[in-house]
Amino acid sequence: MKKRNKKITAGILVIGNEILSGRTIDKNISFLALWLNSNLGIKVTEVRIIPDNETKIVKNVISLSKRNNYVLTTGGIGPTHDDITAKSISKAFKKKYTYHKEAYNILLKYYGHENFNDPRKKMAKMPAGSKLILNPSSAAPGFMIKNVICLPGVPSILQSMINNLKKYLVPGLKTYSLSVSVQTIESNIANGLEKAQNEYKKFVDIGSYPFFRLGKIGVSIVLRSSNRNRLQSCHKTIVKFLKKKKLKIFKGS
Amino acid sequence: MKKRNKKITAGILVIGNEILSGRTIDKNISFLALWLNSNLGIKVTEVRIIPDNETKIVKNVISLSKRNNYVLTTGGIGPTHDDITAKSISKAFKKKYTYHKEAYNILLKYYGHENFNDPRKKMAKMPAGSKLILNPSSAAPGFMIKNVICLPGVPSILQSMINNLKKYLVPGLKTYSLSVSVQTIESNIANGLEKAQNEYKKFVDIGSYPFFRLGKIGVSIVLRSSNRNRLQSCHKTIVKFLKKKKLKIFKGS
Repeated sequence: MKKRNKKITAGILVIGNEILSGRTIDKNISFLALWLNSNLGIKVTEVRIIPDNETKIVKNVISLSKRNNYVLTTGGIGPTHDDITAKSISKAFKKKYTYHKEAYNILLKYYGHENFNDPRKKMAKMPAGSKLILNPSSAAPGFMIKNVICLPGVPSILQSMINNLKKYLVPGLKTYSLSVSVQTIESNIANGLEKAQNEYKKFVDIGSYPFFRLGKIGVSIVLRSSNRNRLQSCHKTIVKFLKKKKLKIFKGS
Repeated sequence: MKKRNKKITAGILVIGNEILSGRTIDKNISFLALWLNSNLGIKVTEVRIIPDNETKIVKNVISLSKRNNYVLTTGGIGPTHDDITAKSISKAFKKKYTYHKEAYNILLKYYGHENFNDPRKKMAKMPAGSKLILNPSSAAPGFMIKNVICLPGVPSILQSMINNLKKYLVPGLKTYSLSVSVQTIESNIANGLEKAQNEYKKFVDIGSYPFFRLGKIGVSIVLRSSNRNRLQSCHKTIVKFLKKKKLKIFKGS
């Protein structure tokens, strides 16, 4: 495990017509972003959702891969005709799209000789030189080529594979967060938050998120920083400001 | 209302650190994609999620705006320091970032003279020449400048504004869809689906989505087309294939 002293970033590329049509609600972005940050201190800096289209996959993989330490793709690594992620990424990196011997053997063992048809064999094809990310749920592995990691789209399967991915990722500087929820509307506290943001510029990111739930109107103030001391001191400053304004702070926030 | 004979596309730009950190799960992408397609025949072709960062907002707004008939942004139009969407988009289009008279009056009336502080006034600032999208929930309007539409991030408020946006959008060719869910795994039916896809190439998009819910394993096959006859005929072909394989088709699918 290398030292966690560098900022490490990731981009997420969601590949799937079903997400763009609105038919399926994505559940992977939030899961991956939380997992990467809390386990590895890797910060997601951008997400793109694109259709099952080779040209678009190639273009976006290349551009995200240049700008980030890692790219995680979701979707398009199954057995059907619309699963074109592995082939497209081979093209993006000018690698041969070919059978991975270990993946082939895993799938052969899983399905048995008589049932190992072409669609199933297809799941063993990937860019030459890929490293496997083993799949404890349904055998078909994900893979990593260069700094790009390809995972399936089904959330339960993706989540079951995530621990097998960990060893390939170099951890970065962890981002810590503290939050406070208060009974008010944003425009009542905007000036105080801006003052705090200016005071802690560069060290703490202050986000302000209004909410309307369970009949309560409020604002969640979320502080994020890689420096715990500054984070705590900024949190104190804001709580003091809210108390001075005599606002009700929600418990457990 | 113009004739719906052209393909009209939209890009969605989600602006918000809280989505990238994984803390907040986006609810707007799926809502907007479904609404645009079912009400207006507008197809979402790409989505990007980016942080509250002026340079990134400018760059992404310009690039999405060139490639799509419309761009819808969500988030960053509130009163706090991290709400920088309106200012950034003014910059992207080299428009003055200034008070919109009608928006100013709406907010003044809503808050009253004595409570109309600077953060509240800020919500009336936008690119010069913007058209307003009225907000029946919390007064602060969205706006449209060129082909870019700026909406708030809070899902309930966004949803309440959507009908006030409709009049600004030219409808396109509607995409129809039919689906069938079947008790099987994808690799059992991949060959038949590929054959059907080749037969209906260019006319129907066939998507295959495995699911594991309520203890059932299955595949949803989703057909999408702007041509209703071809869609129905492709659906028949697939159902015939599934029946020939003696697979159980789930009711109501």
